[in-house]
Amino acid sequence: MRLVRYTAPGGGPASYGLMEGDDVVRLDGSPFDGVRTTEERTPLADVRLLAPVEPSKVLCLGRNYAEHARELGNEVPEIPVVFAKFSTSVVGPDAEVPYPPDTADLHFEGELAVVIGRECTRVPAEGVADVVLGYTVANDLTMRDLQRAEKQWTRAKGFDRSCPLGPWVETDVDPAALSLRTTVNGEVRQDGTTADMLLDVARCVSWVSQTMTLLPGDVVLTGTPAGVGPLQVGDEVTVTIEGIGSLATRIVGG
Amino acid sequence: MRLVRYTAPGGGPASYGLMEGDDVVRLDGSPFDGVRTTEERTPLADVRLLAPVEPSKVLCLGRNYAEHARELGNEVPEIPVVFAKFSTSVVGPDAEVPYPPDTADLHFEGELAVVIGRECTRVPAEGVADVVLGYTVANDLTMRDLQRAEKQWTRAKGFDRSCPLGPWVETDVDPAALSLRTTVNGEVRQDGTTADMLLDVARCVSWVSQTMTLLPGDVVLTGTPAGVGPLQVGDEVTVTIEGIGSLATRIVGG
Repeated sequence: MRLVRYTAPGGGPASYGLMEGDDVVRLDGSPFDGVRTTEERTPLADVRLLAPVEPSKVLCLGRNYAEHARELGNEVPEIPVVFAKFSTSVVGPDAEVPYPPDTADLHFEGELAVVIGRECTRVPAEGVADVVLGYTVANDLTMRDLQRAEKQWTRAKGFDRSCPLGPWVETDVDPAALSLRTTVNGEVRQDGTTADMLLDVARCVSWVSQTMTLLPGDVVLTGTPAGVGPLQVGDEVTVTIEGIGSLATRIVGG
Repeated sequence: MRLVRYTAPGGGPASYGLMEGDDVVRLDGSPFDGVRTTEERTPLADVRLLAPVEPSKVLCLGRNYAEHARELGNEVPEIPVVFAKFSTSVVGPDAEVPYPPDTADLHFEGELAVVIGRECTRVPAEGVADVVLGYTVANDLTMRDLQRAEKQWTRAKGFDRSCPLGPWVETDVDPAALSLRTTVNGEVRQDGTTADMLLDVARCVSWVSQTMTLLPGDVVLTGTPAGVGPLQVGDEVTVTIEGIGSLATRIVGG
């Protein structure tokens, strides 16, 4: 299944939906308490897709691909690094993100995003499949200069609109070895595979859930492969993950 | 005004209320769109107080009192340190917090908490008074060993129940020079004043709002004075701030 969140033509409240061919079928309520479809069907081309979920928090693994850790001059961490983004960070597919005036070095980081389906705490790795709703694509936008200057990454990683997410939640994909490719204005910048994660998806989710309860819709970002780099005003950055889809974001003037 | 959130005797949904003498007067809706009282009045002794707000995020200033920075062997930061807690971190007054199995060094940190009253971004210091609903008391519970071991403090500071908050939001107090005292089992451990903050309340809120939109009910913690220390199972820790009130928390077996 591909689950979306959208507004119908003409606006109105956000609904959850299910992709069927080129249509979106509206769900009754949210997918977190069971996917129940209604009779309401709209062509995908006519709706506005939103971020597919509304996380209460986004927990992110840092330096989870060895080559990416090294490209920024960092060691592979002995203890996994966890940082956060917030509900105010999340934007949907095809979002415009103003270049923040706080940075002179805004970077893209394409990432596989895990969407949590039900409340859970201290999930063992072998139990993670039971708490995951599915997978989507994320861009972990980063103010690299602030990240280097400030001990804690809360501002460098958690700023407004720093977490493009979408286009949908794919529930039927094995995340173990998916190609992940990021382009800027059509030029390939990251070309990795989720097989190169140091902690795999199950261990990422298990790790962050050891101290923090995850709620339905919460998102875990699993780190970025090598190839990160700067963005400029006017750039279109697109992250594509095999078997899931493509997430495009435009950087605009502040 | 003293604004509370509570459940009535016998349970039921949470309501916002206004303290009047020894009674709680129920509000119509939340205090964020204007305080409208109802006729429903309950003795304070009969209600169960909850955390006075439900923050989407809690943003915290680290090392904002010089003496506290030094007691942990740290320099006073040149750039203010910001870390976060989450909705899943927040508990109310008189909460029981299980000693987390992830740490062998759980610490208390008594703090003045600022409650945001309306959505705001990039607030200048001189505009902060307009976006603040009021003040409450917080305990920034910290897994000190994890904080030292892990580069990012997300796990050490953001764990479940790490943010006792309450007992109410006091709207009519000047936060500039309030005594702040923390006791453990009645013994004084922190005895400071908010006058010793490096960044005052207005500059704390202004700083965190530069990159992140604050929502109604979001909370900014303003740092802790010297005297932090470990807690054990069975301890009762109480943070008291002049003109606001006392927040008690009990550490229980995991």
